[in-house]
Amino acid sequence: MSARPVAVLAGGVGAARFLRGLVRILPPEEITVIGNTGDDMWWHGLYIAPDLDTVIYWLAGVADESRGWGVRGDTFTAQAALAMITDRSWFQLGDRDLATHLYRTGRLAAGVPLHRVTGELAERLGVRSRILPMSDARIETRLKTDAGDLHFQEYFVREHWRPAVHEIYWTGLDEASPAPGVAEAIEAAGLVLIAPSNPSISIEPILRVPGMRAMLRAARGKTVAISPLIGGRAVKGPTVELLRAEGVRPDALGVAERYQDLATGFVLDTADAALAPSIAAIGYRIAVRPTMLDDVESARDVASTAVNLLREPAAA
Amino acid sequence: MSARPVAVLAGGVGAARFLRGLVRILPPEEITVIGNTGDDMWWHGLYIAPDLDTVIYWLAGVADESRGWGVRGDTFTAQAALAMITDRSWFQLGDRDLATHLYRTGRLAAGVPLHRVTGELAERLGVRSRILPMSDARIETRLKTDAGDLHFQEYFVREHWRPAVHEIYWTGLDEASPAPGVAEAIEAAGLVLIAPSNPSISIEPILRVPGMRAMLRAARGKTVAISPLIGGRAVKGPTVELLRAEGVRPDALGVAERYQDLATGFVLDTADAALAPSIAAIGYRIAVRPTMLDDVESARDVASTAVNLLREPAAA
Repeated sequence: MSARPVAVLAGGVGAARFLRGLVRILPPEEITVIGNTGDDMWWHGLYIAPDLDTVIYWLAGVADESRGWGVRGDTFTAQAALAMITDRSWFQLGDRDLATHLYRTGRLAAGVPLHRVTGELAERLGVRSRILPMSDARIETRLKTDAGDLHFQEYFVREHWRPAVHEIYWTGLDEASPAPGVAEAIEAAGLVLIAPSNPSISIEPILRVPGMRAMLRAARGKTVAISPLIGGRAVKGPTVELLRAEGVRPDALGVAERYQDLATGFVLDTADAALAPSIAAIGYRIAVRPTMLDDVESARDVASTAVNLLREPAAA
Repeated sequence: MSARPVAVLAGGVGAARFLRGLVRILPPEEITVIGNTGDDMWWHGLYIAPDLDTVIYWLAGVADESRGWGVRGDTFTAQAALAMITDRSWFQLGDRDLATHLYRTGRLAAGVPLHRVTGELAERLGVRSRILPMSDARIETRLKTDAGDLHFQEYFVREHWRPAVHEIYWTGLDEASPAPGVAEAIEAAGLVLIAPSNPSISIEPILRVPGMRAMLRAARGKTVAISPLIGGRAVKGPTVELLRAEGVRPDALGVAERYQDLATGFVLDTADAALAPSIAAIGYRIAVRPTMLDDVESARDVASTAVNLLREPAAA
């Protein structure tokens, strides 16, 4: 079985850290990223797509990798001026980052669908992989919390994911369909990867797009998921908290169970090796690797492991 | 007759230069500016109101007075990044200036009408006069030119007002009405001023708002216009070119004739003193002053002249 081309379901930073390894072991042109847009929001008139931007910035080599969002070396002059005229300034807009939002918003206003604008941005920033939004439709991830009914960004950025979450839900699903190119990418793929992203709010919105889960179920035999948890903790963000809110076991086994109808390969961290037998027992072919992905070498290793996992002879 | 309160019909820089004198001889709180919005445009998803911004920035003391637009000391980081991803970057967006556009666009998107947003911006930037748009409706000044049918900003900024203009016209007038507060300001005014702005594309759009001309005709006896021309030339911009395109005599007398049904006082430049008798002959009370307005003293002098013109005993 050829691993090419590859389709990757992706959230933000976790996926981006993984993808910078993947593009080093496969021709970037053969990779299609299907990105979460549930976190997108309108902010002071601009359409912001944080996960798509994160993936594009990392693959373009301009990401602020230590901060985890925005453009490296960016300035915040507009942001500071905005904070002088409104309290509504909790979502940080870097000056260079603003150019991305301006371009995207202007094109959307001109009637260009999100998948085309995303492709234009990726191309103009020098990204050779194909970056697709999960849908051109406006799907919004919302959370019912102790602090009220919040947009994901309100919960994550404004409230620093402190409120207890009671429910995650989505608006806009009814009218939505996968973006043009998504179905073709999954069908043509020799390998589908579920990036080490938050299952509840990065991967789940992608799966919720009408038609998507059925397509991915049909692709189960060629799909490998990478666990976003290490020793029961997230590298960054509220992965554990949100899995708990959903009643999912917040560890690698819980994630593996969650993806059971979608994937046959599973990569988990060495810290979770004790869970490997249980994950294998529910039908996965597994690999155990250090998955912190905090440098390119580690990302390349995990990517290589994921790419080869289903190509190796099955264990006895 | 008391000159207070005062209503001022205003375009961009010419009006702003005049207003910085007016606010020094009258309590700023007693001044209502009725600003042109025909030059407004959507630009990369943001709603830009160049004339309102110019007036606000000048009165707030943050304008780049030598450049004539934007904020003093602004940086252009977002602009430079935008120019890397699109050719559509001829309209310059300063980083601090962007905060104004972001705030305005966000509020408009939230359903707040333009006159309220304008008031909020002016207040938050410390402007004590009331700044109103001529209308909350979207009225667009367009020009038929040798280079095609252009938005005013395309003609003015992108094409550097080089194309020959055949016709000026407006879209959006049918549904428009004066912004809330405009009629009250004109009615309550002891004095209405027509700022030294381009008659064709700064003042005319205001007059075209349905209902506006009739109100201003009724206010004729308390209205003073200040000529935007000096020796038959504009201080800045295509005033002469556009008057010619309209078949209007491109000098102080032509402007006076144009405002004949709207004003009884007229301030013209010393360079145009030879036209004074002709302007007086068509029914104006006139004053002749240096009107370059290139410093605060000159602006204060012209403002004072305009404010007192109709209060003085009529000449024999």
